[in-house]
Amino acid sequence: MPQLRKDPIFNRWVIISTERARRPQDFVFEKRGEAKGGFCPFCEGSESKTPPEIISFRKDGTKANEPGWWLRVIPNKYPALAIEGDLSRKGIGMFDQMNGVGAHEVIVETTRHIIDIAELSEIEIAEVILSYQMRSLDLKKDPRFRYVLIFKNCGEGAGASLEHSHSQIIATPVTPKRVREELLGAAQHYHLKERCVFCDIIEQELESGKRLIQESHDFLVLSPFAACFPFETWIIPKRHHPDFDQMTEAERKDLAATLKKTLYRINQALDKPPYNYLIHTAPNRVPRPGAWQTIDKDYHWHLEIVPRVTGIAGFEWGTGFYINPTPPEDAAEYLRSIE
Amino acid sequence: MPQLRKDPIFNRWVIISTERARRPQDFVFEKRGEAKGGFCPFCEGSESKTPPEIISFRKDGTKANEPGWWLRVIPNKYPALAIEGDLSRKGIGMFDQMNGVGAHEVIVETTRHIIDIAELSEIEIAEVILSYQMRSLDLKKDPRFRYVLIFKNCGEGAGASLEHSHSQIIATPVTPKRVREELLGAAQHYHLKERCVFCDIIEQELESGKRLIQESHDFLVLSPFAACFPFETWIIPKRHHPDFDQMTEAERKDLAATLKKTLYRINQALDKPPYNYLIHTAPNRVPRPGAWQTIDKDYHWHLEIVPRVTGIAGFEWGTGFYINPTPPEDAAEYLRSIE
Repeated sequence: MPQLRKDPIFNRWVIISTERARRPQDFVFEKRGEAKGGFCPFCEGSESKTPPEIISFRKDGTKANEPGWWLRVIPNKYPALAIEGDLSRKGIGMFDQMNGVGAHEVIVETTRHIIDIAELSEIEIAEVILSYQMRSLDLKKDPRFRYVLIFKNCGEGAGASLEHSHSQIIATPVTPKRVREELLGAAQHYHLKERCVFCDIIEQELESGKRLIQESHDFLVLSPFAACFPFETWIIPKRHHPDFDQMTEAERKDLAATLKKTLYRINQALDKPPYNYLIHTAPNRVPRPGAWQTIDKDYHWHLEIVPRVTGIAGFEWGTGFYINPTPPEDAAEYLRSIE
Repeated sequence: MPQLRKDPIFNRWVIISTERARRPQDFVFEKRGEAKGGFCPFCEGSESKTPPEIISFRKDGTKANEPGWWLRVIPNKYPALAIEGDLSRKGIGMFDQMNGVGAHEVIVETTRHIIDIAELSEIEIAEVILSYQMRSLDLKKDPRFRYVLIFKNCGEGAGASLEHSHSQIIATPVTPKRVREELLGAAQHYHLKERCVFCDIIEQELESGKRLIQESHDFLVLSPFAACFPFETWIIPKRHHPDFDQMTEAERKDLAATLKKTLYRINQALDKPPYNYLIHTAPNRVPRPGAWQTIDKDYHWHLEIVPRVTGIAGFEWGTGFYINPTPPEDAAEYLRSIE
């Protein structure tokens, strides 16, 4: 008998299918493959082929936009949103429109032409995370921006148009719909219980152990109870905090090691699938200090990894109702067993 | 400058990108290709390879589950939800779970091994639509079911696992999240204005003409103002009614011709893309007559077609914020120009 499970934050039901139950080897999808050769604008020596860098980590004495870096943050050459301009909201009859103002940046994580951040050392990954924090803190100073989304598309099947390992940051002038829903869900739980829903999840998952993949000093890795996708995995900090960018140095180092290990497990289980990861963090409260009044208590940042092994078809798009063929308990057991 | 546009029903912002503006020939995606040979359980003569039919349209004197039909409705062999059983809701600590009870049916639209419903005649398409109405009315008698979703995945890139032209029906024991959001958005508009938001859209789109693709006696074909996907297209009835299954015979014939013509335009413009279509209709009010009190006045059924020419990457999944590289006005102009 298939199960329906309700996400405790989004109030979204998910079908956990049993007729279609799937082990890792049953999925048919495009593997990431090996890095190809050819010209790459993100490799060392191609600095002039990208827009000028915003920040970089580089050897003393080397110049911006020249070799000598080991991490570069650059504006996206084909940005989804434009950095200059005001919002100029207007109505068009019954419709609402505003200028597409925002930031769209790319973090080039290494000079080496590799596909997957998991190939970097823990120290290198910690620096990538540091760059996320730095850019997030900086972009939040701009009062036009309400949300800063940090995410990664790894592999063509996950939407990456360039294979050289990179992350993206988009700052948006409105709080995106799914973020708003998550914030509202967390606030509703807090309103009822005066507890953070994520802290409640941590406690319950530690006690049950069924969906737990790994526990480090500062983080839990788990398969969420109502996962929408097979092998969807969360990395969630034990310390309650709404803002990703307020992580300490020790936490950052732990996250780097935990992320590397988790991606290793996923790569082993699913034979290097395309994947997305994204950081769920609180919105920018600078523009509207009154908004989200209990957010410091009710929201809890975390990182979500989605291997892209199944497609999104008409049913999912039409209903927002996901069918997950791998029960999260099974996914956790597979991933846990990989050392 | 890119634009942000707000969907008037979902209150969802969409980025209409200009830097990435795309004409039909710019998209890179897997074409549907031609029908392959080999065994097909949906072809005439394979009746014994599917579960026994629920209904069929067939020649007088022929028997169920034997040749002689021209349309068959059968249970899905690998259903996402199980038809037998009660709901048995329960809590697991803080989580909510229930049995995956529901219906999952397949409509085999023709004996011919074709991929696209647009290859059928208008008369044949009208019978497919009639079968949708019949199954919807029948499934709504089951008080366990709150929603009946009718949809089509055409082409592997749109989630079709069998190529023989077919549609699917899923009846769910909860109102799916996206449906609930659409109903709430429509009810909110009605609460403010005492008018149906879809009727307002029809009036505004007829007046502006910019996003209009076609007008028939009973239907409008248009590119929605805040389309999430390139060449997303709506077919919307002029007569206000919440329920798809209450369409008249004349409307059904008009819809068949309009759907065939619209799919022809999309096939020509995008060179036979994979696509999904789905019917947005009111939920089943039998189980809870008090729910959705103004729905007869505030909700308006329609059919949505989504060509699958772009993927859904980390950004979209993380935010619910879609980036559409083709302004709806441009999409409408392209589609309109195809005769």
